Parts: sequence; structure tokens; C-alpha cells
Amino acid sequence: MSWNTFGRVFRMTTWGESHGPALGAVVDGCPPGLSLSEADIQPWLDARRPGQNKFTTQRQEPDAVRVLSGVFEGKTTGTPISLMIENVDQRSKDYSEVAKAYRPGHADYAYDAKYGFRDYRGGGRSSARETAARVAAGAVARLVIPEVRIEAYVVEIGGDGIDRANFDPSEVGNNPFWCPDAEAAQRWAAMVDEARLAGSSLGAVVECVAHGVPAGWGAPIYAKLDADLAGGMMGINAVKAVEIGDGFAAARLTGEQNADAMRPGRPGNDGPRFEANHAGGIAGGISTGQPVVCRVAFKPTSSILTPVETIDREGNATEIRTKGRHDPCVGIRGTPVVAAMMALVLADHKLLDRAQVGPR
Amino acid sequence: MSWNTFGRVFRMTTWGESHGPALGAVVDGCPPGLSLSEADIQPWLDARRPGQNKFTTQRQEPDAVRVLSGVFEGKTTGTPISLMIENVDQRSKDYSEVAKAYRPGHADYAYDAKYGFRDYRGGGRSSARETAARVAAGAVARLVIPEVRIEAYVVEIGGDGIDRANFDPSEVGNNPFWCPDAEAAQRWAAMVDEARLAGSSLGAVVECVAHGVPAGWGAPIYAKLDADLAGGMMGINAVKAVEIGDGFAAARLTGEQNADAMRPGRPGNDGPRFEANHAGGIAGGISTGQPVVCRVAFKPTSSILTPVETIDREGNATEIRTKGRHDPCVGIRGTPVVAAMMALVLADHKLLDRAQVGPR
Amino acid sequence: MSWNTFGRVFRMTTWGESHGPALGAVVDGCPPGLSLSEADIQPWLDARRPGQNKFTTQRQEPDAVRVLSGVFEGKTTGTPISLMIENVDQRSKDYSEVAKAYRPGHADYAYDAKYGFRDYRGGGRSSARETAARVAAGAVARLVIPEVRIEAYVVEIGGDGIDRANFDPSEVGNNPFWCPDAEAAQRWAAMVDEARLAGSSLGAVVECVAHGVPAGWGAPIYAKLDADLAGGMMGINAVKAVEIGDGFAAARLTGEQNADAMRPGRPGNDGPRFEANHAGGIAGGISTGQPVVCRVAFKPTSSILTPVETIDREGNATEIRTKGRHDPCVGIRGTPVVAAMMALVLADHKLLDRAQVGPR
Amino acid sequence: MSWNTFGRVFRMTTWGESHGPALGAVVDGCPPGLSLSEADIQPWLDARRPGQNKFTTQRQEPDAVRVLSGVFEGKTTGTPISLMIENVDQRSKDYSEVAKAYRPGHADYAYDAKYGFRDYRGGGRSSARETAARVAAGAVARLVIPEVRIEAYVVEIGGDGIDRANFDPSEVGNNPFWCPDAEAAQRWAAMVDEARLAGSSLGAVVECVAHGVPAGWGAPIYAKLDADLAGGMMGINAVKAVEIGDGFAAARLTGEQNADAMRPGRPGNDGPRFEANHAGGIAGGISTGQPVVCRVAFKPTSSILTPVETIDREGNATEIRTKGRHDPCVGIRGTPVVAAMMALVLADHKLLDRAQVGPR
Repeated sequence: MSWNTFGRVFRMTTWGESHGPALGAVVDGCPPGLSLSEADIQPWLDARRPGQNKFTTQRQEPDAVRVLSGVFEGKTTGTPISLMIENVDQRSKDYSEVAKAYRPGHADYAYDAKYGFRDYRGGGRSSARETAARVAAGAVARLVIPEVRIEAYVVEIGGDGIDRANFDPSEVGNNPFWCPDAEAAQRWAAMVDEARLAGSSLGAVVECVAHGVPAGWGAPIYAKLDADLAGGMMGINAVKAVEIGDGFAAARLTGEQNADAMRPGRPGNDGPRFEANHAGGIAGGISTGQPVVCRVAFKPTSSILTPVETIDREGNATEIRTKGRHDPCVGIRGTPVVAAMMALVLADHKLLDRAQVGPR
Repeated sequence: MSWNTFGRVFRMTTWGESHGPALGAVVDGCPPGLSLSEADIQPWLDARRPGQNKFTTQRQEPDAVRVLSGVFEGKTTGTPISLMIENVDQRSKDYSEVAKAYRPGHADYAYDAKYGFRDYRGGGRSSARETAARVAAGAVARLVIPEVRIEAYVVEIGGDGIDRANFDPSEVGNNPFWCPDAEAAQRWAAMVDEARLAGSSLGAVVECVAHGVPAGWGAPIYAKLDADLAGGMMGINAVKAVEIGDGFAAARLTGEQNADAMRPGRPGNDGPRFEANHAGGIAGGISTGQPVVCRVAFKPTSSILTPVETIDREGNATEIRTKGRHDPCVGIRGTPVVAAMMALVLADHKLLDRAQVGPR
Repeated sequence: MSWNTFGRVFRMTTWGESHGPALGAVVDGCPPGLSLSEADIQPWLDARRPGQNKFTTQRQEPDAVRVLSGVFEGKTTGTPISLMIENVDQRSKDYSEVAKAYRPGHADYAYDAKYGFRDYRGGGRSSARETAARVAAGAVARLVIPEVRIEAYVVEIGGDGIDRANFDPSEVGNNPFWCPDAEAAQRWAAMVDEARLAGSSLGAVVECVAHGVPAGWGAPIYAKLDADLAGGMMGINAVKAVEIGDGFAAARLTGEQNADAMRPGRPGNDGPRFEANHAGGIAGGISTGQPVVCRVAFKPTSSILTPVETIDREGNATEIRTKGRHDPCVGIRGTPVVAAMMALVLADHKLLDRAQVGPR
Repeated sequence: MSWNTFGRVFRMTTWGESHGPALGAVVDGCPPGLSLSEADIQPWLDARRPGQNKFTTQRQEPDAVRVLSGVFEGKTTGTPISLMIENVDQRSKDYSEVAKAYRPGHADYAYDAKYGFRDYRGGGRSSARETAARVAAGAVARLVIPEVRIEAYVVEIGGDGIDRANFDPSEVGNNPFWCPDAEAAQRWAAMVDEARLAGSSLGAVVECVAHGVPAGWGAPIYAKLDADLAGGMMGINAVKAVEIGDGFAAARLTGEQNADAMRPGRPGNDGPRFEANHAGGIAGGISTGQPVVCRVAFKPTSSILTPVETIDREGNATEIRTKGRHDPCVGIRGTPVVAAMMALVLADHKLLDRAQVGPR
């Protein structure tokens, strides 16, 4: 099956392949009257854009977005917003070997097993290039939730984590790794460069925090806010794990340690003051008014220069090394994608909540 | 919003509260002609049933399921299958304190914030009692995927993990912890009993493996098999994290270490032989034919006897201790629920795949 | 495929067969805080109930509804509302002949062709008995749209239409035909009785008008208000046609005749005054603030005493006459079902509109 | 709300406005391996294309479709198929008057009431220009159901119906009215020309028949084949009524007259032989193997030269005449759209059926 729509009320449908003429997203269900132009979207695409430094793939894509519908005189009309990004720097010649054999860890074999054949150019639809469409749609989602501020940053590369004592959000934009710890950023520069030169790759962990989410978003039981975040994040290319709040660490706490005690809020503030946020801002699938926190693990890119044993399409043994242009650490460019998915899930849940309960 | 349907083609809709007269599930989209009676469902409910030993809540519920529709002369008819379980042992009197104040870590505050009030008896709809309906529906899902064998077991309680060298699947049914390591089970018995006596609680990690899933299930991009598993598992009460395959550990591997090299399969076997399964049986959101592996972290139950600071419904400071009957480690009884969600996701994806690609 | 959920945000899922132990509906997405008890639902079920006079089937069903979840202390909680109606007067013995051969005009052959076999007792899932669940769910939907008043009445039986000059809404409850024209009701009594005695059946046309729908409900392009009404009404058993506003008659008007000219509304009234309502209160799929008008054609019941040529399950020629208890004119008891579907569609669209645009 | 996706498994999402840069459809869920190029789609768009004779709007649009994704080496890949049509002949200057006042019968007022403002150029999203996207997607749907042959033709214009005795399918392409009765076509030429010269407009009735639909498609209860057809057809611009089979005429038959008696099929033919098709090929929401028949009523275009009383955006009385280029009878160009919707519904139901029941 193919299922390229995300969201229940605020919905995006994405399309496009790595080496097709273009890719895009149709955003449906966006409220009317919001100011929107390409300039609201382009900065988020630029943050994800490849080829900006030596730590990411050297594919050069301007990723210029066009808004083809749904906006009139600078405002959203409430009708579907079609966003298109043309592919410019496709080098299909790099993929002749991939056409014949399966790259381990890639979707090559699975796509062939499912569909009977595949668009092998750059991974076709399975390429992380698709995430450009999500980032574009996520930029629209942000307009729906102006009360929310989303931070996303890398907290670990190749097993080397940041020191939380050094955590400085203002550092995130100062290095090519979205790293909030200036010292870690320096270490990572060396690590990622080494991996790049060796044709190897590294994994990463990205953390994403949404501030300003009011209490009450989330649709129990089967569209819980945390469940939708988990599904949304796990669907990003190369992601293998998702945590909410303390995540796996919570399984090692006692009930007493894990309790997020509450005290009365300040006068005029209508919510409680929480003593901790082990829960990551979500209880029973509904936001509590605390920051929504999730962490996402990216595996190392499967595209490596070291030859790996594999089979060809006829089932014969062979080996393959991936010669194209690739990210040595996909988690880095995955960071804006994580933020976009957070925005998409929250926008959808704001509208879902409004449907049933009314405005907050 | 309320969203109580799970699945796209094979769908379950659940209903019911902890202390209402009954709870249930409507299973829709089940293929016709499958043999089904209460006897196919009851054993799975019995596995999840409370009150069977001192390590779980002492609430006594027979959890007897009735099939109210969708079956004729012992076969599914292709029409909706209504499953109902009556609640028997509700002690609503235990919850008077909960009505007035919020239990930290519970959904109490979030439900009030969302809906304006809540059914406070036993947590109402937010109670893990709802998972009985999932287990019943999961039993039907299993009939749809006879080619698949699902194993679920606990690999860690309170931070104490099993020794993989001791892993013995036949041990899983021999102890009250679904533990595949007999030695760990003994240690856990002491730990959980201590927590129980202290009115405390412990977290757990559950692993679930599905054997026999053919290559090709999964609906990229936004209904990837791993994304749906992540969403399904994260929506289980008390779950805070989900991993596929190596999960967070994959973020610490290099691309070389993480590669699941392929070799030709045996003659007559139409799939490749994989050298490893770091990917957990899923690539690009599509199954590879290897075992599908996920791990799920349960936080410690929020219901503890130690008083915790909180606020009452008027926002005043108070403290609360949860006096009802509760599980000292919800991960234990969560294990059959994890298995049920695996079955539900796989049944849905088998049918989704059949819709687009045809039968395998 | 089986697809037993109706609605996008306010959703009902129905289950049950004509001769199973019970049938029901799960209503999901209902706003919290609405007063709801069985007494709010029962009158609508009573209106549809069989066996109340000689013009409907003599099956005696009390159709007593139970609310099994989603209500606490008399208010909806925002969680799923499970409604159950037990079947009491099943006479399965009447259906032995039906098990072997196909009743022309019934769903017997189609169900067998699709599912390979069928629950032949009373038509199983294809029985109009399922509509009791819709009426129950529709009663909940009415609570969501208190601003709307729905009228449904029969305007034609067996080709004999009412005289619009005699139209008196207060007559609708004074006769067993939901007829707003007292004279027509008298003629119909004779006609339907004659058909009943002859073991024959008659068709009918039902009109339904919703007053008080504000301008702005409807979700273009593929969930237009009129499209959802058409789909909802056509899905009622025995319905073969649906019109909005002038319907087929509009195809015979010129543009000048069909124009619904607008004039300024009264001061303090924020909408325009329309000179006519050829459009039936919907333009571009969105309500205009005028009454929403639709008309629905019911075919004559296929269950007749006159033998009809048919085939048996093995494909051999035979003939069949339907001996069970049946309605001589299903359109009569279909009238409350039409009203229920109107309520369900409008409730869903009120919430959909609120999701995107906010409250009106 | 905005809801621009149609279908459950075979889904299209359309976007675009009358006077935006382009419009399009994303087709998701299409099976892999089907031959597809622009040449498979263009002829259907050409059939719907405006400006081809004096009986349709003089807007000149080449309606050239581009396939932007989902096809590799001439075959569908199973991933989303993005179809785009550029708008070429927009004359926005024609719409200054429409910006200020509401055209009765158009969606102008309803869109303003819903969204607070609207793209008034050519009706924006509410323009029938959107149906080009449906026709393009419908061309893809046809590839999914090669066993089905769809005929669509006009049976009535301005109240003047064809003579069924003259019915000749081969005539349909011989006149600009998709008319199967050569004599009626001549009469209509005079009628439509007169309406065109007078700046008036006429309604029409379109009939659509699908041959070759096997028994068993349809998803009871809430995605019945006839319900989905009714919803799909009613959502076409200017449609006000939908009938299946005998439709409203069935309400005037007795049960005996309406019975579609069955006789054994020919040897080697696995279905029965029906004596009539009053049901229009659908019973209980499931296809019977007979031709699927529906009829659709189009109102006269609301765009007429005769001034009509209306109000402006401030609520003041004014009058309006629509000076742009318009179809004097939208039903004519609606005919290929009706056929496309039939193809879309059937393709979806073929796949839905395959999901639950398996291949036929």
C-alpha cells in the first residue's frame, strides 16, 4: 500500500522522488486568513538544504518552494495549499550499480519485494529528499500554532553526547550540527569529518521541545498526542527510536522518582506549576501545559564506501559500495525535519481539539 | 478530540471506562470465513487478566468476552465483530479522594483540562482497563495473520535486565513476569514484591518479535510499518518510548557496524539470508522478511502509596496517595497488550498491502 | 470490504445483525458536557420501532437502548458513547427458504458473491434493522446541534403525492405515515392496507428539512455538505435516489428561474434574505443559512408474497416468496432514519467547520 | 473545513483555483506496474476541455497534463502520482464586479460566510475548473479497472429528453452534447444556442453506466457502492440529484414490478442472468454483476446575463449580471466528469474489496 497523507484534520499529502522533476506537498485543512508567502517557508527549507557545508551531502539543491494554490492576496483561503520544489541537481548516472543490486540497510530490497520493481535513482520515493516536502508543510503548520515555539537540536552524534551543563539554546545556530553545546560541536566536527573522509557514517540523537502547548491537546485513545508524535517521528528516514519525556530512562525510575508533583500556579496563571517533567508534557495522551519533549534516534546512513556483501536482483551474491553523494550523519539534516513533524502533529491536534471541545 | 479507532483497513473501535458496566471493541474489516468463537479470544484475555498473582492488581475481573455480532455458524461473516466484556469488580468508593485532587503522573489533570470534567472512577477512560478491549481485538487480528508468530516478553524491570545468554523462550510462560531468563525472573520476584509492599512501583521494558512477516508489508510514507508500530505501542498506557531493531543503540553504531549484509537464500527459499537484523525487519517502512523487532518502555505506575504534592480541582495545594488496587509494575500486564498491538498493526498492513499490490 | 463507520469528526460505528443477540453503535468525537441519558434517545427509537400498527412489520421489538459508556453523572465525557439494543423477537425459523435461494432485489446474492456465504437470518447485516443503531446515534447527534430543527415526512407513497396546498407540519404526527397532508394520509391508509393484504409492497418519497443551519457548514471539495448528505441518505436500506433542493426539477429550469435572488436581511439579522431556495440551502457544498432540503426515494420492499423467479445457491432455477414479517412500505419507517442521517451529517459538519474556522 | 481527498484506498487529493497558476491531483494508492504516460490521460482531459465549440465556455485552456511523480520507465511505481495542469487563459479582469457582490446560485456568499473572504477570480476553488483534476485522476483510475467499460452521455437538456428508442451509443461522440439520440442532439443544438445568445442557461441530466463490474464490490454499511457513487456525483459542481437504477421511478413501482428476477446463467458463466435491472446493478450496497447505472441532474449555470437581485459584501441591495465566459449548459462538460467519478469510485472499491476478501 501507499499512504502519503499525514494528519487527520490538518493534513499534508506529499509526492515526488529523489530524481523526478519535482516534489511537493498539498496542505489541506489549514485555517483561512493566515498570512502566507514563499518567504514564510523558504527559511525552514534552507535550514534543511543540502550542500551547505562539508558535513552534509554535496548535492546542490536550491530547494526553492513555489506556492501554487490556497493563497489569495497574501492570505490562506482555507482551500488546499499546493507547495512544489523542483529538483535541480539530479545525477542519475551515479545509480547504475544500485539498479542491479540491493544496498543493505536501504529500502532497495523492501521496495522491490513489495512493488516488484523500483525507481532506483537516488532511492526514488524512499530518499530522504522527500522530507523537504514535510519541512515545507511544517512551515505552514507553524502558522497555525503561533502560541508554540519549537526547538530541535542534536544531543548525540556517534555515541558522544552533549554535556547538559553546557546547554545553551543560542548555540544551536552557531555550528553546522544544531548543537546546543559549543564544546561538543567542536568534537563532532572532527568526528563527522573523519567519518566523511573514510566514507563511513554516524548515528545521532535529536531532541525536540515544544514550548507553549496548552493543556488539553491530544485525542485519546488512538490519536494520543504522544502516539501521533511517535508515529510521525518514526516515519522520518533513518529513525529507529522515539522517546517522550524520560523515555527509556523512565523504565528505570521508581514511581516516587517519576512523579511530576504539582503545586498551585502563580496568580493569574490558570495552570499548575509542575515540579518536574518526567512525562514530557503529556499524560494519558493529552498535553499537560508543560513543554512537550521528545527524542529521536537516527541510525548511521546506510550509504557507505566500504563494500558490503549483498545480492543482486536475481538473488546472486555480490557486494556493493555506495558511491553517490551522501550525508555522513543524516541526523544533522534530520533535525529540521523533526521540528517540522512536531509542528505538523501539534497543528493537527490544535484543530482536532477545537473540533470536539471548542476554542481554548 | 476523541479518536477511538485504530487501523486503516482492519480497524478496531474501543469503548468503555474502568468502572462503567462494560467495555468492548468493534472489529471492522475482518476477512470473512475465518473460524472464530469466544474460545479463540479468551486465552489472550486471561493472559492479561488482573488478580492472578500477588505481582499484579488484586482487582478480580473474569474478563469474559462475548461475541455479539459478525460471526455466523462459527465463521466471521465479513461484517463488524462486536466484542463485549462486562466489568464485575468495580469498587468506586476507593476513588473519592481522586475526585477532588489530581494524581501526579496520571491523566487526571489533563482530562480535566481538556474536557472540563472527568469520570474519576478508576481513571475512567484513561484506565489501562481499556487495553482488555485491545487484547480481545488483537485475538481476532491474529486469525488474519496465521503466517505470523508473535512473541512478547519482559527484558528489564526496575533497570535490571535479562542476560541474553540465558534467553529461553520456553521460560516465558513459567513465571509471572513473562520473563525469558529464569534467573532474572527470580530477582524480579523479590524486587516487585518489595515495591508492592512499599506501595511503590517499577518500570519495565517489553520486547516483541514477530516471526514470519513476509517482505513487503508497510505503506510508505505516512503509514510505514515501523511508524504504525511506534504509534500503536506509544498509545499503550504508561509507555514512554519505542524502539525498532537496534533503536537507540543504532545511533551509536557506524554505518559499517549497522549494515545488515545480505547473502543468497537457500534454494527454494525466495528471500535473501541476512547476516544481522539491526534494522528490526523493516527498511524504508516496509518489512524485509526478517523478524520484526520492537522494544517498548513502560514507566512505573503513577499510583503509589507515598503522598505526593499536588493540587485540587480548585487549584489549591494538597497531597495525594493512591489507595486503590494497582499494579506495582504495569509493564508485566502490558506485555500481552504489546503483543496485541503488534497483531493489530500487522493484520492491517497485510490487508493494506493486498489492496494495492494483491495477494502474496 | 466492510466499512461500518460514518462521519469524519463526529463518528458512529454500528454493528449487529437482524437475528443476533443485539446491535449497537459507538459514537465517537461527541463534545463533552452534554446532558445525555437513555431518555434522550428512546423517543427517536420509538418513532422508528416496528409493530406499532398494521402498516409496518409485526415484528415486536421494544428497541430499548442502553448507554454503556461515555456518560458520567448524566453528562457526556468526551469519550466514546456505546449504545446497545438487544434483539428480542427473532424468529429465525422463518428464513429456512432464504438460506437456500436468493430473494430478488435483496442483498442475498450480492453478499454471497462478496463474502462467500451470509448470515441469512432476516438478512443478517443487510437488514434494515441496522438502522435502529443509526437512529440511536442520531439522537446523540441532535444534542450537538441544538440550533437545528429537523423535520422529516413522507411526501409520496406508491406514486400518490401530497398536495403542497394542504401541507401542515402539525399533521405529521397524527397519522402512521408521517404525512403532512391529512387527506393524503387517508388515501395512503387504503393503499398501504391493500398492498399489505396482497403481500405486495409500495415505494415512497421522504422529504427532510433542517431549519437553523447557519451559513458556512460544509467541507469542499470532497466532503461537501450536499455530497455527504447524498452519501448518507443513499446508504439507507432501499433508498435509490437523493435530491437536494429542487433536485431533478432544477435540470428543467432556466438559469433565470433557478436563481435564488438575495436581498438585505432585517436589521440585526446578519444574513441575507433569499427570495427562493431552489438550491436547498447549499451552494458550493456549503450551507447558505437557508433551510437544508433533501428528498429521498425508497423502492418498494423486495419482500413480497408473490413468487418470483430466482436461482438457488447452486445456480439452479427456482422461485421464492418471502414469508416473514415485513413492512409493506419501508419508506414509512425509513422516515426517522432519514432524519437521523441528517442530524449525523450536520453534527459532523458543525465540528469540522469548528476545527478549521473556529466557532460561529 | 477543507477536505480535498476522495477515496479510501485509491485516493486522489486535488488542489488549485480557477485563476491560480495551476491545478492538479495527487493520486495515492495506485497499484504498481501499470503502464502510464501523459498520453493515457490527455484524451480524457480533451473531452472535458473548454472552448471546443460554441456550446461551451470560450475560455481557451490546452489542459496539458504533466506527470510529476510516481511513474518510472513508463510504469506506475506504487508511489503517489502527481498530476499538474497549468492555467493559461485566466482573464482576471472580468471579475471585478464579482469581488464586491454575490452571484445568486454561486458559492460566493457561502465561501465568504465560511472563510471570511474568498478568491473571487473565476470562483476560485469553487470553479468547475477543479474538475479537470478529477478527470486526470479518473484516467489513472481507469487503468486500475480494465475489466470495466464506462459510458456517460446526456439524456436530457432543458427538460427535453432523448427517445430511448433512438438510443445509439455510437452517436455519443458524433455531436457536441454527448447525446446518444441523433434527433435529440439536433433539437438541443437549437436550444443551447438560443440560451447562449440570450445569456441564459439550461440544466441537463447525465446517465452513466459501468459495464463489467463483477459481483461483490461495495463496502457495507457506510461505504456502500451506491452511497459512494451518490456522494461522489453530488459533489460535482452544479449537481443537485443522483439516482441509482430506477431511482425516483422505483418509488412508484410495486414490489412485483421492481423485482429483478434471476435465472441460471449460461454454462461457463459464473453469475445469474437477471431479467431486469431496476436496482442499477447494486443490492445492499454491493455490486450484483449487472451494469451499474446512475443518473445525475445538473442545474442550469448560475452565471447568466440577466441582472439578478443580490447584496454586496456590506449587505446592501444591488444587482449583478455575470459577464465572463461561461457554459450555457454545464451538464455537457460535466459528462466526462461523471464518468471520471464513476471510475474513481470503482477503482477504490475494487481495491477495498481486494483488501478484505482477496482477489476475484
